[in-house]
Amino acid sequence: MSQMPDFVSIREVGPRDGLQNEEPIPTDAKVRLLDALSSTGVRRIEAVSFVHPKAIPQMADADEVWQRVARAPGVRYSALVPNSRGAQRALDAGFGEIEVVVSVSDTHNRRNVNRSTGESLDDIAELIDLLHGAGAQAEVVVATSFGCPYEGDVDPRRVAAIIDRVVADGADRVAFGDTTGMATPRRVRELLTEVRDRHAHIPVLLHFHNTRGTALANMLTALDLGVTEFDTSVGGLGGCPYAPGASGNLATEEAVHMLHDMGIDTGIDLDALLEVAELAERLVGRQLPSGVLRAGPRTRLTPLPTP
Amino acid sequence: MSQMPDFVSIREVGPRDGLQNEEPIPTDAKVRLLDALSSTGVRRIEAVSFVHPKAIPQMADADEVWQRVARAPGVRYSALVPNSRGAQRALDAGFGEIEVVVSVSDTHNRRNVNRSTGESLDDIAELIDLLHGAGAQAEVVVATSFGCPYEGDVDPRRVAAIIDRVVADGADRVAFGDTTGMATPRRVRELLTEVRDRHAHIPVLLHFHNTRGTALANMLTALDLGVTEFDTSVGGLGGCPYAPGASGNLATEEAVHMLHDMGIDTGIDLDALLEVAELAERLVGRQLPSGVLRAGPRTRLTPLPTP
Repeated sequence: MSQMPDFVSIREVGPRDGLQNEEPIPTDAKVRLLDALSSTGVRRIEAVSFVHPKAIPQMADADEVWQRVARAPGVRYSALVPNSRGAQRALDAGFGEIEVVVSVSDTHNRRNVNRSTGESLDDIAELIDLLHGAGAQAEVVVATSFGCPYEGDVDPRRVAAIIDRVVADGADRVAFGDTTGMATPRRVRELLTEVRDRHAHIPVLLHFHNTRGTALANMLTALDLGVTEFDTSVGGLGGCPYAPGASGNLATEEAVHMLHDMGIDTGIDLDALLEVAELAERLVGRQLPSGVLRAGPRTRLTPLPTP
Repeated sequence: MSQMPDFVSIREVGPRDGLQNEEPIPTDAKVRLLDALSSTGVRRIEAVSFVHPKAIPQMADADEVWQRVARAPGVRYSALVPNSRGAQRALDAGFGEIEVVVSVSDTHNRRNVNRSTGESLDDIAELIDLLHGAGAQAEVVVATSFGCPYEGDVDPRRVAAIIDRVVADGADRVAFGDTTGMATPRRVRELLTEVRDRHAHIPVLLHFHNTRGTALANMLTALDLGVTEFDTSVGGLGGCPYAPGASGNLATEEAVHMLHDMGIDTGIDLDALLEVAELAERLVGRQLPSGVLRAGPRTRLTPLPTP
């Protein structure tokens, strides 16, 4: 195994990708979650998405949430947008880091946004120009990068071709989404090798779901290949865990727990994070899937009964 | 990452370590589970333990279970024993592979068997002689190898000193038990490096619990270091998942699913195994924690709705 990094940059996606896949919660609760997260030491938070309220009612109050959040110094906040209307809302709200999404799988892309992958890539080229024109950065998230629930395996060369295109169109950064938890160490290695051979310098972030138990093994493989940016979700927030769509985000505390034990810093206070995971559980009103939340960190000892 | 092995030997421990930590089920159900497992292609099964029925009522019918099981050709069955009385029962029942346990942690060992680690090691020396005298093989399972819930971190040199002793006493094989899910990739690497430096030729098996989500990352690390034998439990059987004692076995189908995708054979038919995991769930009457059981293998496609 190669030299491990000293620091891993965690982007907390619970408030957006997490809550988008849970039953809707009140605006107050979202603000409370975001403010609690920004006090854990996490340096990046995906705060909201600007989408049509009919498509995703969970994000209907994105503008209000964002207005009420205390912008913590030292935290980079980002927003996800599906189109130019959403991009304009995100810019008007003052976001400087904005994510756009396209699926490698044409079937998945059509099911998501009723457009082909090629059509979405054309849209994204225009979105990048719009964002750059307003001084914002554009990240392209490539969904179904490790497999599609409708099409099956995805050839890493198809993903690489998409990266070729969006890099040429000016993307500042790329992310690979394991949309339905199909990534394995083998798939991570194959994809990263293919992309890094062609684009050694573009910043890469990985977004794993733990649907089939492989998320931390995937992260370990990616670390070995030099990736240092990951999306995770507090408590594993991101409900309806076995629907075909999006499910089972890797829990932030499971990632941080493993990384810290490996001597890799994240800037995050694990105890503070676990309190936020408990808060998240109360806010959504269901037990979240995080093992570290249930069992506590490995360093938390069990008291012996008094004789 | 080093060359991966072509084959990994899975020992299925659901019928023993799994059921021992669930509510008791009828003898018939145990026989049914064992016979279903032996038809999946798995090559090794930990079938029962011969323990005092007051200590572990779940195994009170071990003799009857074992008499009624169809001994499948090509499957190696083993039994776990706590002492010479249990060892004699296992030998009388015809077992040729027998496991004995000791905890690295003195506190854990005393809580388990009311003896110090040193006293248990003396017992084990006698047990090995007893087993060898009857022509059976002795495996020593070292519990709390990656940490103790009462004492915390365990120095790998303490584990290595135990291996020194049991190898000198004639142990045929050793296993490292992650008794309460405290193993991480770092701990696996540190322990294996320490032991392999001193005992390059003793067969080593690893037994992980997924209490904190790290089990497959730990397995990946161990594969990288040349380990090819693992305990797993169908469905993740092994209940009361967050008790301090024993909890959260790595699910066999999660291990097999990842290994097969990496091109590593196990001899196991994953579809057949998933049927047994469903059976296990019905037999114990609770939802088991296996992600692959819930979501299906990554290769199982979601049908598109007809327009």
